[in-house]
Amino acid sequence: MNKIVITSDENKLIKHIKSLQLRKNRNKYNQVIIEGFNIVDECTKIKPELIEYLVFSQKGLYTLNGNEEKYDQFRCYEISDNLFKKIAGTDTPQGILAVIKIPNYNLDALLNIEGGFFIILDRVQDPGNMGTIIRTAVAANATGIILTKGSVDPFNLKTVRSTMGAMFSIPIFQSNENEDAISTLVSKGYKLIATDLNTESTYSNISYKGNIAIIIGNEAQGISQNLLEVANVKVKIPLLGNIESLNAAVSAGILIYKAVEQRTK
Amino acid sequence: MNKIVITSDENKLIKHIKSLQLRKNRNKYNQVIIEGFNIVDECTKIKPELIEYLVFSQKGLYTLNGNEEKYDQFRCYEISDNLFKKIAGTDTPQGILAVIKIPNYNLDALLNIEGGFFIILDRVQDPGNMGTIIRTAVAANATGIILTKGSVDPFNLKTVRSTMGAMFSIPIFQSNENEDAISTLVSKGYKLIATDLNTESTYSNISYKGNIAIIIGNEAQGISQNLLEVANVKVKIPLLGNIESLNAAVSAGILIYKAVEQRTK
Repeated sequence: MNKIVITSDENKLIKHIKSLQLRKNRNKYNQVIIEGFNIVDECTKIKPELIEYLVFSQKGLYTLNGNEEKYDQFRCYEISDNLFKKIAGTDTPQGILAVIKIPNYNLDALLNIEGGFFIILDRVQDPGNMGTIIRTAVAANATGIILTKGSVDPFNLKTVRSTMGAMFSIPIFQSNENEDAISTLVSKGYKLIATDLNTESTYSNISYKGNIAIIIGNEAQGISQNLLEVANVKVKIPLLGNIESLNAAVSAGILIYKAVEQRTK
Repeated sequence: MNKIVITSDENKLIKHIKSLQLRKNRNKYNQVIIEGFNIVDECTKIKPELIEYLVFSQKGLYTLNGNEEKYDQFRCYEISDNLFKKIAGTDTPQGILAVIKIPNYNLDALLNIEGGFFIILDRVQDPGNMGTIIRTAVAANATGIILTKGSVDPFNLKTVRSTMGAMFSIPIFQSNENEDAISTLVSKGYKLIATDLNTESTYSNISYKGNIAIIIGNEAQGISQNLLEVANVKVKIPLLGNIESLNAAVSAGILIYKAVEQRTK
């Protein structure tokens, strides 16, 4: 592995990587940091074309213990452990990170696929929930994820960590024009399924076949009124015990896998 | 509301509350701290008998804006905002906490109930996962939760926060004798259902009726060998996409609600 050694934290590349800790810069450059051996190795295996370059700390290289060939095809940088800590966003980094391109997908093309299966996240706020739902959507082989305005950034470090690499394997659409995206889903005949505590219909008694989108709402406020209005089907997950709601990622998992159960039969 | 004002952080009670940040002291005194208006108010409503006393910061009292009657029946203390921060375990506390008794339940009595529905958590490590699963178990009206040795403390502050108050509403058994508890389940004819990627049987094709226990494994290592050996039924949740596993709390939610679906029919 050929490595370029960087020693100064005034270096332009280091400054650039640091800047990617902010959402506005991730959007501006269309790039995101992923950090840790598991997720970086996953990305080098399944989506090598996304990788711009890799950065190792001395500790990270020491961990590799000479097994560096798998990174030969990528541009690699080496920096000190101290410098690495400043850009990694975790207190005890493993010593490897990658700057990757945020993949671009064409929503219109995906919408023309027969048997589309989207997950709409409506202002989901918790990065852990967001990441866990993305991971579940990949497990379910969903077509894509659409985020409404006000959702947490799916490309912040916490979310990326929670996805366990799943973010490379599914189209994620976040833009201010998602209300258009949702109108498009409706106009294409998609069935929009929303959870709503104020309904009698139970999630396990409806059909999830054909073109569907499952809507998961904000942790505290649920699904917004305008989305509830365009939803074709409202269902509830029964709460039998003394509790007001389920965790958003758990609700998502229950609905998504009910859909999987029916769609794979 | 009659309040006793405490000003010194050398006060015995303050020291006692601080000591409850450690698991060994929670076990020794059989007490746990809950913090924040939502969860404390939930507890005062549904399990007032558990509350030993309440502690307010000046900010917390200010927030109440005179609406203090609902706490009249409890022993109440007032401390400074600074002192509160030291014992609350969060950076921006709301200014209310309660020290509550950890409820005691009799496992043998519960095991004699017809149609028992237990969740066994095998060395689940993440407090967020643990709390979320407890919350789901309450929503599903499960009979109780059994933790194996090596599980994260269900009464640490992070877990308690994730349960959103659910912890008051379900018996939780954590002891070093849980292998006995699990043997007892087996000897009572309980069906133990374990997730296992190395099986052909799908979770949606089995029966969850009668006396059952669903086993959820450690986030990284899954279910331990000795538990897999006593499990009567092994099932997998199909992973259709490019991903190795689901989040533990999501897996738990999918299985638990499959059981709810069958058991409430």
